[in-house]
Amino acid sequence: MGSLKLDHPQENNSNSSPMQMTSALDPVEFRRQGHMMVDFIADYYQNIDKYPVLSQVDPGYLRKRLPESAPDNPEPIETILQDVQEHIVPGLTHWQSPSFFAFFASNVSIAGFLGEMLSTGFNVVGFNWVSSPAATELESIVMDWLGNLLRLPKSFLFSGNGGGVIHGSTCEAIVCTMAASRDQMLSRIGGDNIGKLVVYGSDQTHSALQKASQIVGINPKNFRAIEATRSTTFALSPESLKLAISSDIEAGLVPLFLCATVGTTATTAVDPLGPLCDVAKHHGMWVHVDAAYAGSACICPEFRHFIDGIEGVDSFSFNAHKWFFTGLDCCCLWVKNPGALISSLSANPEFLRNKPTDSKQVVDYKDWQIALSRRFRAMKLWLVLRSYGVVNLRNFLRSHVKMAKLFEGLVAMDQRFEIVVPRNFSMVCFRVSPWVATSKGTPTTPTSNSFHQNGIEDNVEKCTNEVNCKLLEAINASGRVFMTHAVVGGMYVIRCAVGVTLTEEKHIAMAWKVVQEHADVILKNHGDDGDAKLKLPLLDKIA
Amino acid sequence: MGSLKLDHPQENNSNSSPMQMTSALDPVEFRRQGHMMVDFIADYYQNIDKYPVLSQVDPGYLRKRLPESAPDNPEPIETILQDVQEHIVPGLTHWQSPSFFAFFASNVSIAGFLGEMLSTGFNVVGFNWVSSPAATELESIVMDWLGNLLRLPKSFLFSGNGGGVIHGSTCEAIVCTMAASRDQMLSRIGGDNIGKLVVYGSDQTHSALQKASQIVGINPKNFRAIEATRSTTFALSPESLKLAISSDIEAGLVPLFLCATVGTTATTAVDPLGPLCDVAKHHGMWVHVDAAYAGSACICPEFRHFIDGIEGVDSFSFNAHKWFFTGLDCCCLWVKNPGALISSLSANPEFLRNKPTDSKQVVDYKDWQIALSRRFRAMKLWLVLRSYGVVNLRNFLRSHVKMAKLFEGLVAMDQRFEIVVPRNFSMVCFRVSPWVATSKGTPTTPTSNSFHQNGIEDNVEKCTNEVNCKLLEAINASGRVFMTHAVVGGMYVIRCAVGVTLTEEKHIAMAWKVVQEHADVILKNHGDDGDAKLKLPLLDKIA
Repeated sequence: MGSLKLDHPQENNSNSSPMQMTSALDPVEFRRQGHMMVDFIADYYQNIDKYPVLSQVDPGYLRKRLPESAPDNPEPIETILQDVQEHIVPGLTHWQSPSFFAFFASNVSIAGFLGEMLSTGFNVVGFNWVSSPAATELESIVMDWLGNLLRLPKSFLFSGNGGGVIHGSTCEAIVCTMAASRDQMLSRIGGDNIGKLVVYGSDQTHSALQKASQIVGINPKNFRAIEATRSTTFALSPESLKLAISSDIEAGLVPLFLCATVGTTATTAVDPLGPLCDVAKHHGMWVHVDAAYAGSACICPEFRHFIDGIEGVDSFSFNAHKWFFTGLDCCCLWVKNPGALISSLSANPEFLRNKPTDSKQVVDYKDWQIALSRRFRAMKLWLVLRSYGVVNLRNFLRSHVKMAKLFEGLVAMDQRFEIVVPRNFSMVCFRVSPWVATSKGTPTTPTSNSFHQNGIEDNVEKCTNEVNCKLLEAINASGRVFMTHAVVGGMYVIRCAVGVTLTEEKHIAMAWKVVQEHADVILKNHGDDGDAKLKLPLLDKIA
Repeated sequence: MGSLKLDHPQENNSNSSPMQMTSALDPVEFRRQGHMMVDFIADYYQNIDKYPVLSQVDPGYLRKRLPESAPDNPEPIETILQDVQEHIVPGLTHWQSPSFFAFFASNVSIAGFLGEMLSTGFNVVGFNWVSSPAATELESIVMDWLGNLLRLPKSFLFSGNGGGVIHGSTCEAIVCTMAASRDQMLSRIGGDNIGKLVVYGSDQTHSALQKASQIVGINPKNFRAIEATRSTTFALSPESLKLAISSDIEAGLVPLFLCATVGTTATTAVDPLGPLCDVAKHHGMWVHVDAAYAGSACICPEFRHFIDGIEGVDSFSFNAHKWFFTGLDCCCLWVKNPGALISSLSANPEFLRNKPTDSKQVVDYKDWQIALSRRFRAMKLWLVLRSYGVVNLRNFLRSHVKMAKLFEGLVAMDQRFEIVVPRNFSMVCFRVSPWVATSKGTPTTPTSNSFHQNGIEDNVEKCTNEVNCKLLEAINASGRVFMTHAVVGGMYVIRCAVGVTLTEEKHIAMAWKVVQEHADVILKNHGDDGDAKLKLPLLDKIA
C-alpha cells in the first residue's frame, strides 16, 4: 500500500440502518480501516518536518471548530481522518519531529508502535497472573533482561528476590515506593506518627517527588528541596543532606525517603549515589533513584558509571518512554524488596481470589502499583529489545549523544554564547553569555571584570536572562525548532535535548542556524552596532 | 491485504551492519511492518473463538521458552510475530473472546483501536496545554460531550465551571479526589489532623477505595467498609452510613470521604445516591461515585435513573475502557470543583512555565492527575463517539443487556439454579441452588423446610458453596467460557458478565450449555441417582 488519499471518502451506509455491535470489531472492516490508519501515520512521519514543531494555535481553537455534541449517527473513518488532519494536527506540538529538542524527548519507534498495537489488540487486563499469564510473565522476563543490561545488582532482579515492574510514570513509581517506605516506618514508630516523616530531594529534583510526597500524605512542611549549587554542578551534596537530616532529627522529626536523581531535568546533573546512600542508610531511610531520562544511557558501558552506588539504594526507575524507543507509557521500576510494595499496595478482594495466587507461585502485579487495571506494556519493550538488539540500541543512544556533542561544539565556537554546565548525556544547556566579547579571542567574564561592582552584576544577570528568554521565544515562534528552558543558579538557560528517533545531524545544524539567526536579530536590536565586535546586549539599560 | 502468512520470514539483513537510528522510524518500513501487524491482529480476531478463553498454561511457562537475555542483534518482525503466536497467545486469557464473561469486560472496537494507533503514532505528551494544545482541548471537548450524554448537571462540565479529565484507572481517580478532599479538610481543621480523617464505603465497594485510602495516608483504622446486606440487595443503606458517621464523630474522628457505587463488582448493586448524599453532605464530606462498569449504560434514557441524585455529589467516574469500546485505559472523571484537585496536585516547576499557563486561559491536565506525563487518550474516545454515533452506542449497550436477560431466562428455567440478585445491567449472578427440587414445579427453599434446624442450614450453605466453586472451576477448565465468582451474604455466586464486542446470542446459548453440562456431571457425582428428580447435592455429607 502507498500513501493514503482521503479526497473521496466512501459513502457511509451506516446512517440508514442500525449497526450490529459485532461489526465494531469485524475482522474484515478492522483490516480495511487498520491499513488505512497505518498509511495515515506513515504519511504523517513522512511529512513531519513540514509542520511547525511547536503548535501555533491559540487557546480555545478547537472548540470553535468541533460540534457542540457527539453525533447521533456514525461517521465514516475517511471523514474522521480528514478532521484529524485539518483540526488536530495543527494543534499538535510534534514530539516526533526531528527538530523537537524540548523537555526530554519521548521517542517512539516502529517496534514500540507495533508492540502497542499488539497490546491494544489483545487488550488483556493483566492485574494478576491468572488474568493473562503471558502479560505478567513477559513483564518479569523483560525487566530482568533490562536489569541485566543496566548491570543492576542481582538483588533488584527476580532471580535475586527483588524484581521489576512497569508503571505509567515516574510519579507513580515514587508514590508507590514512598507509600511502602512510609508504612514500613510507621510500623516501627507507630501509625499515628505520619506527621513526623520527612522527604528529601534537591531543588533540582523533578517535581514528581514533591507531588508524590503530597499525595501519600507527608506534611508539606516536611518536604525538603535542598539547594544544589553550581559548585557541585547542581548535584545534591551529601554534606548538605547530612545537615538537613540532623536538623530534622533535632526537631523531633523522622527522616523517611530520599530521591536521588541521575540526569536532572534542568541540566542532567547526577547526584552521587554512593555517598548519598551512606548518609541516608545511617538513618534507615528508603533511597529511590530517579533516572527517568538518563537511565537508558546506562546500558552503554561508558555511561554505566553514572549509576555507580546503585547497590545501596532501595529502588530505581527510568522511563523507557523517554529515551528507549517504546513510546508512552513505560516507566521501568526495580525494587529490592517487593514485599514492602505488596504490603502497602495489596488488596485481595474475593472476586480476585484464584488458585495460582493462593499458591504464592506467581507475581500479581496489581500489588506493585496504584491501579488494579494494567495494560500489557511489556510487549512494546520486548519488541524494541528484539527488533533492534542491544548493539543497535546502544548505538542509537550514542548517536544522540554524538549529536548533542556536535551542537555543543557549534555553541562553543560562537563567542556570544556560553555552555552553562558540562554535558553529561544528550542535552546541552547554553545561553547568550553575559560577558562583553572585547575581541573574538578573549571574552572577559563577570568574575574578572568591572561588572563585579555593587549591584551591577545582578543587573547584568537579569538582563542576560531577559535576552535569553526573548531568544527562546523567538526560536520557538519560528516553528522550525522547539527548545525549552530552565533556571539554574539564577541563570535562565536554553536546553537543547536530543532524543527523537528521526533526528539527524542536519537537524542539529539547522537548529543551531535558527538559534544564531534569531540571536543576530535580538543582539543587533539591543547592541550598539551589531558588528563583529560584540557588546553586551542591554548594557545601556543597566547604566 | 489478506491474512498474514508467516511461514517464510524474510531474511534479516541487519545482523551484518549496524542500523541507522532513523530507520527505527523510517516511514517505508513503518508502512510494511504496520500493515503486517494489522493483518496479524485481524487474524487473531478471526480465530479468537478457537482459543481456550482462560489460559491453560502453568506458572513459569514463559521463562522456559524465552532466552535468558535480550538479543545482541536485531531479529526480523516475522520471527517475533511467530513467537507471539507460539509463546504469547497460549499464555493469554482472551479478554476479547466472545465467550469471556469474567470480571467485567474490557471491550475494544475498531474505532478504539484506531484512536490508540493515532495516539501512539503522534506520541505527544500532553501534560500542559502548550505541550500539545489539541490533546488538552479534545479531552475537554469529549468529556463535555460525554457528560451531556450522561445528563450530568452542568456543574460537572467546563461550561459550568466543573470539568472532566481522563485518568488511567478508577483507583487513580479516587486517589486524586480523596487527596483533594483531604487537603481541603486539613486546611479547615489543621494539617496535623490527618490521623482523624475517616473514609466510608460499603463492604461491596471496589477494593480501589481501600487502596486509595491507604495510598493517601488515611490511617487504616479509619477505613469503614459498612456491611451491605441482601435486604437492600447489597446497596449501602443511608441509615447504616449515618450510624457509622455518628459513632466516629463521637470518637473524635472527622468524616472525610464517601465512595458510593453504581454497579458494584460482585452483583452490580446500586447505592442510593440522593439519600447517601443527604447524610454525607450534612457532615461536609466529599462524595465520589464509582460507576466504573455501569456508568456507560447511563447514556441510555432507560438506565439514567441509576445515577439520579448525581447533582449532590462532588465527583463521578466511569471506565470507558470497560463497557464503552475504547480499550485500556480510559477512566472518565468529572469534578465539580477542579480547583480542589489543582490545589492538591499542582506542581509548577520552572521548566514547565509558559505564557498560556500564566495567562490562566488554558487547562493544564497535569494538575488534575497523579503523573506529569499523559497519553492522548481523548483520541480514542472521540473516534468511538464519532465512528458509531450515540444511537449505535446505546444499541450496543442494550444488546449486551438483552443477552444478559437471555442468559437470565435460561438459568431461571432450570430448577437446579437460582438467580441470586435482581439483574440491573448486563451481568447475571447465579448459583446452583441449595434446595431440593422435590418436583420440577415446586422447589422448596431452606427458609421453608427442615434445613432450618440448628446448624444444618449453615452446612447446606457451605456445601452449596463448594458445589458452585467446583462447578465454576470445571467450566473454566473447559476453556470454552470464562466466568468468575463473588461471595455475597455468605453465598458463593457465579457471575456471567456480558460486555465483549464480539459476543452474540449464540455465545450466550453455548455458555449456558457449558454450565449445564458441567452441572450435570457434578450434581450426578454428588446426588443419589442423578435422574430427573433432583436431590440436594452433598446432602449425605451433611447428615
